Amino acid sequence: MTASDLAFATIAEVAPRIEAGEISPVELTELALDRITQRNTQLNAYITVMADTARRTSERAAAAIKAGQYLGPLHGIPVAVKDLFATSGVRTTFGSPLFADWVPDYDAAVVERLNAAGAIVLGKTNLHELAYGTTSSNAHYGAVRNPWHLECHPGGSSGGSGAAVADGLAMAALGSDTGASIRQPAACCGLVGLKPTFGRVSKFGALSLSWSMDHVGPMTRSVEDAALMLQVLAGHDARDPTCMRRSIPDYRESLTKTIRGCKLGVARQFFFEDCDPEVEAAVENAVHVLRDLGAIIVDVELPDMWVCHRMGSLIIAVEGAAYHADALRTRPEKFSDEMLTSFGLGNFYTGVQYVQAQRLRRHLTVETQKRFESFDALITPTSPVPTTRIADDPPGHALLRSRNTLPFNFTSLPAISVPCGFTSAGLPVGLQIAGKAFDEAGMLQIAYAYEQATSWHQKHPPQ
Amino acid sequence: MTASDLAFATIAEVAPRIEAGEISPVELTELALDRITQRNTQLNAYITVMADTARRTSERAAAAIKAGQYLGPLHGIPVAVKDLFATSGVRTTFGSPLFADWVPDYDAAVVERLNAAGAIVLGKTNLHELAYGTTSSNAHYGAVRNPWHLECHPGGSSGGSGAAVADGLAMAALGSDTGASIRQPAACCGLVGLKPTFGRVSKFGALSLSWSMDHVGPMTRSVEDAALMLQVLAGHDARDPTCMRRSIPDYRESLTKTIRGCKLGVARQFFFEDCDPEVEAAVENAVHVLRDLGAIIVDVELPDMWVCHRMGSLIIAVEGAAYHADALRTRPEKFSDEMLTSFGLGNFYTGVQYVQAQRLRRHLTVETQKRFESFDALITPTSPVPTTRIADDPPGHALLRSRNTLPFNFTSLPAISVPCGFTSAGLPVGLQIAGKAFDEAGMLQIAYAYEQATSWHQKHPPQ
Repeated sequence: MTASDLAFATIAEVAPRIEAGEISPVELTELALDRITQRNTQLNAYITVMADTARRTSERAAAAIKAGQYLGPLHGIPVAVKDLFATSGVRTTFGSPLFADWVPDYDAAVVERLNAAGAIVLGKTNLHELAYGTTSSNAHYGAVRNPWHLECHPGGSSGGSGAAVADGLAMAALGSDTGASIRQPAACCGLVGLKPTFGRVSKFGALSLSWSMDHVGPMTRSVEDAALMLQVLAGHDARDPTCMRRSIPDYRESLTKTIRGCKLGVARQFFFEDCDPEVEAAVENAVHVLRDLGAIIVDVELPDMWVCHRMGSLIIAVEGAAYHADALRTRPEKFSDEMLTSFGLGNFYTGVQYVQAQRLRRHLTVETQKRFESFDALITPTSPVPTTRIADDPPGHALLRSRNTLPFNFTSLPAISVPCGFTSAGLPVGLQIAGKAFDEAGMLQIAYAYEQATSWHQKHPPQ
Repeated sequence: MTASDLAFATIAEVAPRIEAGEISPVELTELALDRITQRNTQLNAYITVMADTARRTSERAAAAIKAGQYLGPLHGIPVAVKDLFATSGVRTTFGSPLFADWVPDYDAAVVERLNAAGAIVLGKTNLHELAYGTTSSNAHYGAVRNPWHLECHPGGSSGGSGAAVADGLAMAALGSDTGASIRQPAACCGLVGLKPTFGRVSKFGALSLSWSMDHVGPMTRSVEDAALMLQVLAGHDARDPTCMRRSIPDYRESLTKTIRGCKLGVARQFFFEDCDPEVEAAVENAVHVLRDLGAIIVDVELPDMWVCHRMGSLIIAVEGAAYHADALRTRPEKFSDEMLTSFGLGNFYTGVQYVQAQRLRRHLTVETQKRFESFDALITPTSPVPTTRIADDPPGHALLRSRNTLPFNFTSLPAISVPCGFTSAGLPVGLQIAGKAFDEAGMLQIAYAYEQATSWHQKHPPQ
């Protein structure tokens, strides 16, 4: 492997060679830090680089592995952490001046889990302010740039994580997803992004946009890597009251099962409407590939997804405005105009409207989950539109970017985005696969079969 | 046993004699129906009497027991059901003209469970309109009267259940409790009333005042009877998403354990403030009795219970206004002025205020449950004030009546009211014992020890 190969390798490719002593965690970490030095000024993917602690951790990992204490596939793997997860001794900004000087004395649960698995945290990635937006054009920490096209945004809110993993500035990253924020930047950056079922992964130590809609998950270069990350991240944690006790399968083992005979639902209503024609064509091609792999494609109708989107948006606005209520009143100058507008809208809703939205949510979740009983997973475009120029975001795109993803935050179902092509301008397109509640394994199996039949995930941005 | 003894007997006294064939369910049911005929015109405890079905059920029970198919302690026991639990084929009014003609085609989960245990449902009891109040002076179905003093109310909202059980018009009853509605009428009527931990008993088929504050439980003549009822009512039910899978102990078995060495907390701040002096004296006497039984009495401080009361009241108002939103808009004439005011207040709160109340609730629940780690149960007056004249409710009493009980709806903890004396005017006083989450057994044990050391529960209203 050349340095360039290594910079774009997957965890699954590198891990056995780390275990065998052929690749050193120190070497991998230095390579990533080098790339950060070369490219972060342009990409603005990281807000804080933890070069010293990363080096120390990589040396400890190297020594442990040499001593025969190999911990598993994440041992010695350099990863990035979205800057809304608390990191002990390292400031955690939430992409906002409100938290610019906040240095937590504890780690978020998912950071603890990565540390315990031997991963090396390289730094904290940039994001849309307070995780409330889909471009990562942060008014305070600067806009993140998309490595596929530097004039374009990387999606958001986990845009820094997306840009870092796509351009070899980390092998994988942590993201959070309240309406789109893992899957849509994964789609924009040509990556895999996985939002688990609500309750599957602990949110302890993750700053909140909306308690009932927030999810935490991985962004990776392959479906297998997403499975390896989820294996480490998933599990009960008493510190997060929404985190559930559920058995956790071996996610990697489930990947290689055949999808012959799997029933895949396609809901052209809603999810395929108003799509960019090149996005639509790429996703229709993906449906063909899945059919060729032996999957049974069925046209399905779901409950009203626009209601899911609107009620979900209301819930996010109200819960976000509640979380930031004190700061909005006492330090409004710490918010961008965009945030003042977004949270300001949250203050317009009544308690009764919020409660009605949650009642509708319960009803629509039950109805949606019932429909999912008649197929194994649902196929949609991740985002109806590809990334656009930072300087010139077309009207209506803000709404479209979360349209296809937010319904699965609303209904708690797991969903993954995998690369499925490029527009003629060379911008990545994502395929979303949504699964049954707590069936991340089944969803990963379909994503893996598709990925193995295609080569989109092997491409990387122009260097 | 004379007919009068039988009319005021407990389930625990009668059940072995039913099993032995000495008392017939038919005889017991006729006795209760006779008393309803004689006294309901005055008490107004029942909205609907199910004489025919009760007779048929009692005959089936008698035949089954004769054939050796005895189901357990509730078999053949005549009970009353608050008229907010759905009953298949029998109208369920919710104490409101909105539901005056509603005849469900299904039974509430707790009604199913009583039927399956062989209990005989005598009818549907009157309540405060839409369960939102503490006097049961219903503007549409008439005021319920307290059998201890006919000019007084029986408490509420489960006032009909309280009056029926207290005056021998049923041996036990189902109630619901959103802020006071089982325990405070139990206190007013000289009965035992048990509000279980949130999630212990299914609310499927119970009309809702406030989803997150509503609880379902029994009203009985003794602590042992409350244990027998809870044994049948408790348990997981997938149709109620808030109902939890928790192991269920043998409640009767736990009653006879000694309370010597039990630590009982007394929080004089808040719970003993502004009490009627005779109520306070009765409860202080109860504390002495418990100390004499070997319990260790400790003075404790809890988190701010006024905040619990106020935030809980806000949550009830908003959730209630949401539940009735459509009817309030289209059929306001179906609500009393009292309800229009109460639900109207619910419309004033913003979504952010509601979410903040739920956030505070989480915090205060965790803090309160932490304090409960240092003692076994908390002792308070159930209501700071006894019942008052229906025609002349003193100002401020509406607030006081729920003050001591609502904090345990807010914090989800189980609480029971047991009789602990009478005022000089002969009005019953209740002692509240609040337990740790899901430790109804420990709470019942203390209540039983107190009851066995006193004779308050053996008194019954003047005939």
